[in-house]
Amino acid sequence: MAEHFYADVRDAIAFSDEKMRKVSLFDTPRCMVDLYCARQGQGQRPHVHDGEDKTYHVLQGRGEFQVGDERRLLGPGGTVLAPAGVEHGLINPGPEDLVVLVVIAPPIPH
Amino acid sequence: MAEHFYADVRDAIAFSDEKMRKVSLFDTPRCMVDLYCARQGQGQRPHVHDGEDKTYHVLQGRGEFQVGDERRLLGPGGTVLAPAGVEHGLINPGPEDLVVLVVIAPPIPH
Repeated sequence: MAEHFYADVRDAIAFSDEKMRKVSLFDTPRCMVDLYCARQGQGQRPHVHDGEDKTYHVLQGRGEFQVGDERRLLGPGGTVLAPAGVEHGLINPGPEDLVVLVVIAPPIPH
Repeated sequence: MAEHFYADVRDAIAFSDEKMRKVSLFDTPRCMVDLYCARQGQGQRPHVHDGEDKTYHVLQGRGEFQVGDERRLLGPGGTVLAPAGVEHGLINPGPEDLVVLVVIAPPIPH
């Protein structure tokens, strides 16, 4: 079980010049809650999780999301479900930095 | 499995004068993604889910959250984990309307 119950995404946002950065907020036996922080051109190549759902919620910037064959450019308020078994990915087209709240359920084995 | 992959919370926000309104964005075998929309004085009394984690993320307004014995007043960016087995609740102290993104994993049986 997570040892803390509260987090503020404004304190957690952090970028890397090398690649999209993932910042863990909570990690439990039932879900993972992360921030994905991507500079222009950074993202995550399309991939599939066989048994996990991923929910994205755009907090700042804009992201181009792909789920299955659908692509959407979304800004703050945009919310995306990538169900288990469906290919998904994202990229930040820029120029602004992109911050996305991500919940994965159940957590990816690691 | 959900039949759609995309939602915009700005289109989904809806309030009720009677009680806090829950708006479903996605509902899958692995998670539920909802908006909780509360006017001043509305909320959810403390309760426990034996087998589900609930993650709250404040989108607008301010909410007073309780998890176990801890209470926090949180605004936009505030994120809360209410793990399975831990009592939790929230109330909108007002005066602004409160909107919270909520992910429950696994979904509550219904």
